[in-house]
Amino acid sequence: MYDGALGIITAISALKVLNITRRIGRLRRPVEVIAFSDEEGVRFQSTFLGSAAIAGVLPVSTLHVQDKSGVTVQGALKINSIDATEENLLQLKYDPKSVWGYIEVHIEQGPVLETAGFPLGVVKGIAGQTRLRVTVKGSQGHAGTVPMKLRQDPMAAAAELIVLLESLCKQPDEYLSYDGQCMDSTVQSLAGSLVCTVGEISTWPSASNVIPGQVTFTIDIRAMDDLGREAIIYEMSNRMYQICDRRSVFCHIDRKHDANAVICDQGLSSDLKSAGYAALKRLTGENPDDVPVLMSGAGHDAMAMSHLTKVAMLFVRCRGGISHSPAEHVSDDDIWAAGVAVLAFIETHIN
Amino acid sequence: MYDGALGIITAISALKVLNITRRIGRLRRPVEVIAFSDEEGVRFQSTFLGSAAIAGVLPVSTLHVQDKSGVTVQGALKINSIDATEENLLQLKYDPKSVWGYIEVHIEQGPVLETAGFPLGVVKGIAGQTRLRVTVKGSQGHAGTVPMKLRQDPMAAAAELIVLLESLCKQPDEYLSYDGQCMDSTVQSLAGSLVCTVGEISTWPSASNVIPGQVTFTIDIRAMDDLGREAIIYEMSNRMYQICDRRSVFCHIDRKHDANAVICDQGLSSDLKSAGYAALKRLTGENPDDVPVLMSGAGHDAMAMSHLTKVAMLFVRCRGGISHSPAEHVSDDDIWAAGVAVLAFIETHIN
Repeated sequence: MYDGALGIITAISALKVLNITRRIGRLRRPVEVIAFSDEEGVRFQSTFLGSAAIAGVLPVSTLHVQDKSGVTVQGALKINSIDATEENLLQLKYDPKSVWGYIEVHIEQGPVLETAGFPLGVVKGIAGQTRLRVTVKGSQGHAGTVPMKLRQDPMAAAAELIVLLESLCKQPDEYLSYDGQCMDSTVQSLAGSLVCTVGEISTWPSASNVIPGQVTFTIDIRAMDDLGREAIIYEMSNRMYQICDRRSVFCHIDRKHDANAVICDQGLSSDLKSAGYAALKRLTGENPDDVPVLMSGAGHDAMAMSHLTKVAMLFVRCRGGISHSPAEHVSDDDIWAAGVAVLAFIETHIN
Repeated sequence: MYDGALGIITAISALKVLNITRRIGRLRRPVEVIAFSDEEGVRFQSTFLGSAAIAGVLPVSTLHVQDKSGVTVQGALKINSIDATEENLLQLKYDPKSVWGYIEVHIEQGPVLETAGFPLGVVKGIAGQTRLRVTVKGSQGHAGTVPMKLRQDPMAAAAELIVLLESLCKQPDEYLSYDGQCMDSTVQSLAGSLVCTVGEISTWPSASNVIPGQVTFTIDIRAMDDLGREAIIYEMSNRMYQICDRRSVFCHIDRKHDANAVICDQGLSSDLKSAGYAALKRLTGENPDDVPVLMSGAGHDAMAMSHLTKVAMLFVRCRGGISHSPAEHVSDDDIWAAGVAVLAFIETHIN
C-alpha cells in the first residue's frame, strides 16, 4: 500500500513491470495501491481522513466537521455521490488479520538526503511532538531611564532561554548523559533526531523605546524517543526556570499539544533498505554506499496506519528540502530510483 | 527657569519663601519661572515645542505641522488667541547674553534614586541615543524535517545577538578596554550610563511549526558619551556580523535615528548638588550622604535649552521608577525636599 502522487506512480510502475514480465501472478499476497484523501487536513483541519478511516481510528464525529464555508465531511462526500453514514464509516476499517504490512513512499521534505548526496532513504520512525508556549513576565520600563543592572527585562531573558533551547537540542548528550536521567540509548536517539524550533515570538507593549513587560514565544520539540523528549522537556523546563529565577523574571511554560512517536517496523525497514541498495546498484552498475536511515519530523499516513499494521517508509530526495511550496521538486532520476526500489522490494515477495 | 508641574511648584514655592522673608529684592539677577508647552510632542509629534522656540532651535516649518485631525500648530495657537507667524516665532528666541543659566526640576522616571534610598539627585547629562533595526535572514523550513545541524535559523541567531547586546551593554569595559578603541574615561562613562533595549521583535512567517525565514528586532542604545556610544555600536555590529557569518545567516543593521548627548554645566550642577545636600540637612537635622549624580536616559527641555545657555537638572525620586502612567507618584516629602533644594540654590545667588 502506498500514499501520495509519488507513491502511487512508483507503486503502479513497479506492478506494471511485474505484469509485463509476467511475474505478477507469482506474488505471495495481494498488493493494494491506495491514494489516501486529505492527509494534510487543510480543508477540514482533520489530518489523515482517508488512512484513519481504513485504520479504524477516525472518530465518527469527523463526518460532521465543517469546512470554512459550512460544508461537512459528510456533505462533501455526498456531493461526490458517496453516502457516508456513521455505520458505513465503521465498515471502512480493514480487518488487521487481512493486512500484512504498509509501505509508504514520500519525498523527504527536508535536506538530509540532499546533504548526504543520496537519492533514497529509509525512515526509522515518525517523530513524537510537543508544542509549548513560554510566557516571560518582567518589569516594563523606559528604555532610557532604567540602568542595566536594575532591569528585569523579559526580552533579554527570553533570548537566553532560546539560546539554551538551541544548545540543548543540538547537544542533548551534554545536558542529559551525566545525571542518569536517561538510558544511553535514549540519549543516542535524541542526538540524532531531536529538533527544536521557536517559530513565533512577541513582546508587549512592543515599542522600540520601552523595555517590554512581557514576552511570549512558542517551542516545537520533536524526537523519535518519547521518553527522551520528556527528559528534554523536563531538563529544559528546570533550566529555564533557573534562568528566570536568577534574572528575577516570572516564567510560565504551557504545554499545548503532545503526540507520541511511531516506530517503523524493523523487518520491513530492513527489506526496504536492501531494496533501495539493490535499486541503486541496478541503476549505477556500482556498489552504492549504505542507504541512509533517517527520521521523519513531519507526520504521514503511516502514523494512522500503524494502528492497523506494521509500517515502513521510503524517503526520496527533494531539492533544498522544500515542500508544501510551488518550488517543491524531485528529479526524474530520483523518482526512477524510487520506482526501481519499490520493484525490488516487491520482487522479494515473489515465489 | 523651570519646566513641568513639579518644577513650577518647587520654583514658585521657593520664590514665595524669599518674598515672605523679604529677601527677593536682594537677588543678583531676575528669576523667571517658565512652564513650557508640549515637551512630549504627543499631539504634533514634535518634541520641545516651547523650549525649542525660546532657545531659537524650533524650525519655522513646525508652525505648519498638523495633528491627527489636521489642525496645524499655527491653527491651534490661533484658537487660543495667539497669532503666530514665521516672523514673530523667530522673535521668541531669547538673547543668549540676557540669560545666565537654566535649571530644570523633574521626576527621575527611573528607579536609581529609589534604589539608592535618596530623595534627590543631580543630573550629569542627558543621554545621546541611537535606534537601530536589525534584520536576520535565514533558511525557512519545516520545524520537523530540518536537523539542528543543517539549520540556518534566524530566530536562534537573533537570540544570540540579543544575549550579546545585553552582555556588551552590562559590561562594556570587558569588550572595549582591551583593544584600545576608547579612552579609559569613555569606557568608565559607558559603564555607568550605557543602556540597551530590544523593545520589538517579530518573526516571518510566524507559525509555531515553521523555522522562520526572517526575524526583525529593534535596538535602542543610549549613553552619556557620544564617542562611547559610537564605539559600542561599532563593536556590537562587528560581533553581530561575525555571529551571523558563523551561523550562515544574513544580517542587516539599519540605523534609524541618532541624537547626541547633552552634558550639564559642571558649575551649575555642583551648586545644585550643594543645595540638595543643604536641603536634606535642613530637613533631617543630620549630615546626609552625598547627593547622587546620575544620567538622564529620557529627553528633557534642558536638551533644547542647552542651545541657548548652560543647563543643570535636579531629579526627584519617584515610586518604582514609573512615569507616563496613572501610577506615577512622588511623595509629598520628596516634593518638599525638592522645593527646599531650589530655595537653597537661589539663596546662594542673593547679595
